[in-house]
Amino acid sequence: MKFEGRDIISIRDFSREEIDYILKIAQAMEPLAQKGSDMLKGKILATLFFEPSTRTRLSFEAAMHKLGGSTIGFAEAEIASVRKGENLADTVRTVENYADVIAIRHPLEGAARLAAEFAKVPIINGGSGAEEHPTQALLDLYTILKEKGTIDGLKIALVGDLRYGRTVHSLAYALSNYNVELYLVSPESLKMRREVLEEIRGKIPVTEETDITKVIPQLDVLYVTRIQKERFPDPAEYIKVKGSYKIDLELLGKAKKEMIILHPLPRVDEIAPEVDGTSHARYFQQVWNGIVTRMALLALILGEVK
Amino acid sequence: MKFEGRDIISIRDFSREEIDYILKIAQAMEPLAQKGSDMLKGKILATLFFEPSTRTRLSFEAAMHKLGGSTIGFAEAEIASVRKGENLADTVRTVENYADVIAIRHPLEGAARLAAEFAKVPIINGGSGAEEHPTQALLDLYTILKEKGTIDGLKIALVGDLRYGRTVHSLAYALSNYNVELYLVSPESLKMRREVLEEIRGKIPVTEETDITKVIPQLDVLYVTRIQKERFPDPAEYIKVKGSYKIDLELLGKAKKEMIILHPLPRVDEIAPEVDGTSHARYFQQVWNGIVTRMALLALILGEVK
Amino acid sequence: MKFEGRDIISIRDFSREEIDYILKIAQAMEPLAQKGSDMLKGKILATLFFEPSTRTRLSFEAAMHKLGGSTIGFAEAEIASVRKGENLADTVRTVENYADVIAIRHPLEGAARLAAEFAKVPIINGGSGAEEHPTQALLDLYTILKEKGTIDGLKIALVGDLRYGRTVHSLAYALSNYNVELYLVSPESLKMRREVLEEIRGKIPVTEETDITKVIPQLDVLYVTRIQKERFPDPAEYIKVKGSYKIDLELLGKAKKEMIILHPLPRVDEIAPEVDGTSHARYFQQVWNGIVTRMALLALILGEVK
Repeated sequence: MKFEGRDIISIRDFSREEIDYILKIAQAMEPLAQKGSDMLKGKILATLFFEPSTRTRLSFEAAMHKLGGSTIGFAEAEIASVRKGENLADTVRTVENYADVIAIRHPLEGAARLAAEFAKVPIINGGSGAEEHPTQALLDLYTILKEKGTIDGLKIALVGDLRYGRTVHSLAYALSNYNVELYLVSPESLKMRREVLEEIRGKIPVTEETDITKVIPQLDVLYVTRIQKERFPDPAEYIKVKGSYKIDLELLGKAKKEMIILHPLPRVDEIAPEVDGTSHARYFQQVWNGIVTRMALLALILGEVK
Repeated sequence: MKFEGRDIISIRDFSREEIDYILKIAQAMEPLAQKGSDMLKGKILATLFFEPSTRTRLSFEAAMHKLGGSTIGFAEAEIASVRKGENLADTVRTVENYADVIAIRHPLEGAARLAAEFAKVPIINGGSGAEEHPTQALLDLYTILKEKGTIDGLKIALVGDLRYGRTVHSLAYALSNYNVELYLVSPESLKMRREVLEEIRGKIPVTEETDITKVIPQLDVLYVTRIQKERFPDPAEYIKVKGSYKIDLELLGKAKKEMIILHPLPRVDEIAPEVDGTSHARYFQQVWNGIVTRMALLALILGEVK
Repeated sequence: MKFEGRDIISIRDFSREEIDYILKIAQAMEPLAQKGSDMLKGKILATLFFEPSTRTRLSFEAAMHKLGGSTIGFAEAEIASVRKGENLADTVRTVENYADVIAIRHPLEGAARLAAEFAKVPIINGGSGAEEHPTQALLDLYTILKEKGTIDGLKIALVGDLRYGRTVHSLAYALSNYNVELYLVSPESLKMRREVLEEIRGKIPVTEETDITKVIPQLDVLYVTRIQKERFPDPAEYIKVKGSYKIDLELLGKAKKEMIILHPLPRVDEIAPEVDGTSHARYFQQVWNGIVTRMALLALILGEVK
């Protein structure tokens, strides 16, 4: 296993052994996340966010600061030289001179991969198009491992928009490395993309379902995502769907006591606020886990942890 | 007195004894502001500015950097996940994972208080609605103390928009802890809010006045604020008012030689540029004092100064 | 020679001796740019970008971080208090309290000079109007010196929009301190400004030319700039001009083998991508050189290098 200088573009580029190692380093980062460190002193992370995402950007920046490094970057394409018509390859070949590692978020699929082809410094995909979000998948795995002590043997449901949500694509690929039973729960029109489904079906048992009440009793992990209004041509259809996928206390009455609920956030109203106070809720802890996971990735690809 | 972990929401949450202690620590920060310090090394400040305010944001960030800490954040609501419909409570419960302290600015009254209810880390109110701006009030007090050697015994006028200006509300509350005589000078339509007036009248002598020339001879401190055009339904009324509250050399001819002029800035044209060179002007020194005051607050609530 | 506390407004403010010294310090910064330094620990750079320029802003910020300093600032006028009607003099007299040095970019000519008149801390002009961009000129000189071992004795062409491009104005002034032969290659309507031409003609041999094929065989350095569509009232004229100034392999067939191509970037399509892989291309190395040059300037004007 070699991480130094490596790009983090797709979760599919990593073997189970490599993922397990990243999760182990993430755990080792917990005390450094609490008290700070000088591990990456003198190093610079550039965050190139061609699409706004406060959460992911701040998480990367906090991870870098907690390791003693610095950050530069932009939070919106509008601010970038893109305005002047520059192409992504040129932007990357410029910014690699300023930074030791680049985290990029881009509305187009394939953008992070293209950036990695041109860059001499490691590129981390902070979300590209509807495709992949590998650091989110890693922090999701880390959260499951931390909360349940294992990933193998669990029954896990991904709920919501499985078609356009990049988070669930990366997570499904990631989970297919483990001995899990996967439930894909979504409205018909937002079912998991065929190419993802075909690949993971060869590796783990997968059940597609539209009715969440049918699967909830057996679950260990319930992973909820937003269902976006703009995906529905008919607003009435949206209202109906939204209501039937809402996680509330009534629905949770059917769940195992130890079932945990995750969500990549931000949520709108797919999880009722009354759920926040239950022992199921782990979505805010997930945010913390995002920092230690990104600290691990930064330390590994910059060669400060072997 | 205990400051560690405390929120800074309203100046009314602090006793005179506590305010005096903050001002004392601000003074102790002066040399650190000059030469830098590692007091908050490894700590992160998040600046969540849902409303732009370069001045306040840069002041907080400079204060954090001068103490050796790092900053993350956003400068406009547009950039935030707010766009995706996230509520403030969720934003705060997310960002508290990234940062050791959060400075928040929000267009709505009560926003900072709400944030503090949800956050596990201390919240500093960087201005919420037309309500309060406690760190500005503290730096105003610090400026008066530094320039005059005392706050007690002074005659102080607040001039301009006393109705909508959050700065003057916080400052009026703050000054009511001291033995000052307060003059509130404003057009009829922009008089000090009744609830503020009623509270401070029980503690210090307050005189309301519309004519600034009547009060200027006895003043020790003249605190000027902007009068915003958009407050006036009738533009002609605005022109008239603006002219009669303009601070210029002619008006200053009637003032005591030692009277100082403060202004929270930015100013538009309520203070003539010719005043900048006089011994009365202290509004740019005020900016420096904002840094040491915020350094004191950060060090206190993060427990690095007891 | 004294650099401490000095403003960097125009390249014309510097003698050849001073420029040579800056280039020497830039060279000395190369190892620090690789491994980081604490030379400016505790110092703060404010980047006030009233006009967006990711490239220049990130370069200054990276330079500051590599020397151990911190940065604050804004990337767009929209975010600034300018919105509230504040004038530049007040902004500068405010920000000088937050920072040890200010880099400013502004759409108006003369803005950086005005800022320097009001500021107590050094001002670096990061580009003002169509006028000057002195740090770009210095990094261009540094690139030529690093690549060719000398500036004296070279034949150098500036190609493209010589009328509105601030970069070429500063570079022409800078080069006039050396024993170079200068070729100014542009369409008639975008010829070098008369005031620049008159000044440099008294110092070095200058040839104006519209046909790039005529000058290319004798060149040591080809400095290419963007030709912007919006400069042409007639779109057909733009298309024609654009085509005849495009640098491609065919044109380069006529050039000396050791000729180097520079470009301030971003480029649109004035240099064909096929050129990137040739030994002529040095425009991405230029970006790195921008960091060490700005590190040198920051260290010099903050008095950490004498």
